[in-house]
Amino acid sequence: MNSSAVPAGVLRRPFPEALLRALTGRFGDRVSTSEAVREHHGRDESPYDPQLPDAVVFAKTTEEVAAAVSLCAQHGVPIIPYGSGSSIEGQLLATQGGVSLDLSGMDRILAINAEDLTVTVEAGVSRKVLNENLRDTGLFFPIDPGADASLGGMTATRASGTNAVRYGSMRENVLALTVVLADGRVIKTGTRARKSSAGYDLTRLFVGSEGTLGIVTEVTVRLYPIPEAISAAMCAFPTTTDAVNTVIQTIQMGVPISRVEFVDPLGMKAVNQHSRMTLKEVPTLWFEFVGSETGVQEQAEMVQAIAAENGGLDFEWATRPEDRNRLWSARHNFYFAMLQLKPGCRAVTTDVCVPISRLAECIDGTLQDIAASSLPCPIAGHVGDGNFHIGILVDPAKPEEFEEAEALNRRVVSRALSMDGTCSGEHGIGLHKMGFLIEEHGDDAIDVMRAVKHALDPGNILNPGKMFSFTA
Amino acid sequence: MNSSAVPAGVLRRPFPEALLRALTGRFGDRVSTSEAVREHHGRDESPYDPQLPDAVVFAKTTEEVAAAVSLCAQHGVPIIPYGSGSSIEGQLLATQGGVSLDLSGMDRILAINAEDLTVTVEAGVSRKVLNENLRDTGLFFPIDPGADASLGGMTATRASGTNAVRYGSMRENVLALTVVLADGRVIKTGTRARKSSAGYDLTRLFVGSEGTLGIVTEVTVRLYPIPEAISAAMCAFPTTTDAVNTVIQTIQMGVPISRVEFVDPLGMKAVNQHSRMTLKEVPTLWFEFVGSETGVQEQAEMVQAIAAENGGLDFEWATRPEDRNRLWSARHNFYFAMLQLKPGCRAVTTDVCVPISRLAECIDGTLQDIAASSLPCPIAGHVGDGNFHIGILVDPAKPEEFEEAEALNRRVVSRALSMDGTCSGEHGIGLHKMGFLIEEHGDDAIDVMRAVKHALDPGNILNPGKMFSFTA
Repeated sequence: MNSSAVPAGVLRRPFPEALLRALTGRFGDRVSTSEAVREHHGRDESPYDPQLPDAVVFAKTTEEVAAAVSLCAQHGVPIIPYGSGSSIEGQLLATQGGVSLDLSGMDRILAINAEDLTVTVEAGVSRKVLNENLRDTGLFFPIDPGADASLGGMTATRASGTNAVRYGSMRENVLALTVVLADGRVIKTGTRARKSSAGYDLTRLFVGSEGTLGIVTEVTVRLYPIPEAISAAMCAFPTTTDAVNTVIQTIQMGVPISRVEFVDPLGMKAVNQHSRMTLKEVPTLWFEFVGSETGVQEQAEMVQAIAAENGGLDFEWATRPEDRNRLWSARHNFYFAMLQLKPGCRAVTTDVCVPISRLAECIDGTLQDIAASSLPCPIAGHVGDGNFHIGILVDPAKPEEFEEAEALNRRVVSRALSMDGTCSGEHGIGLHKMGFLIEEHGDDAIDVMRAVKHALDPGNILNPGKMFSFTA
Repeated sequence: MNSSAVPAGVLRRPFPEALLRALTGRFGDRVSTSEAVREHHGRDESPYDPQLPDAVVFAKTTEEVAAAVSLCAQHGVPIIPYGSGSSIEGQLLATQGGVSLDLSGMDRILAINAEDLTVTVEAGVSRKVLNENLRDTGLFFPIDPGADASLGGMTATRASGTNAVRYGSMRENVLALTVVLADGRVIKTGTRARKSSAGYDLTRLFVGSEGTLGIVTEVTVRLYPIPEAISAAMCAFPTTTDAVNTVIQTIQMGVPISRVEFVDPLGMKAVNQHSRMTLKEVPTLWFEFVGSETGVQEQAEMVQAIAAENGGLDFEWATRPEDRNRLWSARHNFYFAMLQLKPGCRAVTTDVCVPISRLAECIDGTLQDIAASSLPCPIAGHVGDGNFHIGILVDPAKPEEFEEAEALNRRVVSRALSMDGTCSGEHGIGLHKMGFLIEEHGDDAIDVMRAVKHALDPGNILNPGKMFSFTA
């Protein structure tokens, strides 16, 4: 095993000079073959070594995306949509070469329909930029996968994050998409109606398809009124089990909590170092309560009582907006914080999600795996959803550390699957979890996915080699 | 135009004697070719004349469903899953003959996982039976499409109903399915994890596919804690516009109301007659508030203030469980109540759903259409979602009434589509709305649906001739 899921080069397809000429004719200086640009687009936040596309094209409109896809289709050349580069399972690596299609220039907010609680944006708009643009509306877009990901990328990965426990994931919050198909045709997958029974759910077929079925160019999502009252708090626990049991009981009682995050002692250390904070380095829950003033108070009282029963110490509150922002920004920077625990390291991440009743058992088993590992393994998780991550920190120069990390990952995933959970709560499959996808769904269900892929991309040009094996 | 969307007989495929023998060999007396049984299974609540299957098979297990599908596949014979018969767009008519597969005997509750807020049931379990079985858990399943539909049928139609404004539709509430594919293979589409980014969203591909992609045999859905406090109320308004504006403002303020239903004066008359009530026969909103005691009070105060600003009269409260049940049961029986307004009639139903900001304009235009119609047209709707229905009551013996009803339906749908709405909020496409599906999605998106259909059912045996045209 080396530091890439696919050995570089072996799968690369020819990249015809004629295609490069045609792309340059259409896109001018928005086509690049420079090493630096290709290097930037041939990687993501995964631990894998980059695999470079042959060219990078910067698209500005849906029509340009359609033109680029049509040209690649004519030549049977792979095309990989690129948003903000923050995926972490190897989704963006050009293992078969081809074109990386950078959509970051598709950055227009197309329509804020505040009265309908919807917004339509181009795929390159990031979640932070979206929320900045919503500032005057009293509304916000809640999905927050840590990184300042693009809406197109979040759609492709079926992203979620800290707010999902209350607001759901991209699965629940995308209303409609504009998608460029593998032959360059453009479709809209839905309307702005809140619900619909009109035909197959094409929207959700593309949500989570990781660029393998079509290229998302516009996204319509639901918005929510900014709550009247918001309160955040942290609570330290004697043990991880105490913290997790607090979460389980909170969810089972139906408390409409907006965030409940777990960070383990090593993770807390990483947060302290990265964000220059002085938090206790013990098992900790991070809470957020939203609603009316009385609603927030009711929720907080219920959860404080549950925490106290489980040995939780006093809540430390952050009610001023700047304190809350500092808290959540520290949490959102967790990925980069943990990387600093081991200079020069990369993170092999787990992403399991289990039914909430099995969470304590799942984390207990994981703690035993971690205790037996030689690698630093900070934990953070969206525990209200039953989802948690271990960042297994490896030295990229040491294949044996990758091996150890993957062995640990396999044990964690097997345990989650045995509990009727999933190998990926929110990061997707990419290259990293292809084996787990089969283990989770079984061969027949993967055959169905493969049949759908064949139906929509028979030439296998859309982000080929990701999610499951498929041959044109 | 006659009273069927497809002339009887013209599309029927051969039904080989060998298939009947094989089915009888496998299912014994659970195969029926009696006229009465076939007649019962060749209809639904749509206004269309029945079109009879050649045989009806009563399945008890997923393995039996797989066996029936395999046999039909061998002979290229259509197979139509049948739950409780309550669909209303012609989904169940055997326009091409074949087998109606009755799943009502698949009525086991397989696993109540109260601590995870999930339940897994066989497809034939109805929503009322499910909720009766949940009685001791403190949990409930909120989706309620009026009729006591089966969970399999609700999945196939992507059903919703009065609670969707707060709890979402089947789209948001199905976690995983067991599905028999067109070749008899059985897959599971998901796990009990609350969220997942593992692969294509097969669950939501089958939700809303109306039996055309696979036969759902088991359904895992989310449950919710029964709220601490529940309060229902009715409020009468001087005009429909006043009522609708009240709804729009309630939704836009983000009040987490659990139900808000509109019924027009003619609809109120139908309710009074059918449920022996003495409600005012004026434009009326039906509300339900749930949450903590103080939460319910807060919501009710906000909505009362909004209603008062829009000319609403005093709220009439129903807080005792028996009063609330009487109220909602009257609302749930609306479909049958309105049929009694015109003895012997059938209902051509509209089902549009528009962004909430356009609802007043959409209903205004509809009222003008109705004023110009010679037919009784009671209105009821899940207005919090922007979804409303007209029941256009026609004499089945009078083709000209069907023609007039369909012309009205077309006007209503065109208006909704021009407002970025959908032709079907919750009833599905069936036979009735096939033309509208194309109008809504466009040819290219329908081509994608067709490609998916081809990928999963190349022989076109699964409920053929529904949703969109497709040839094997």
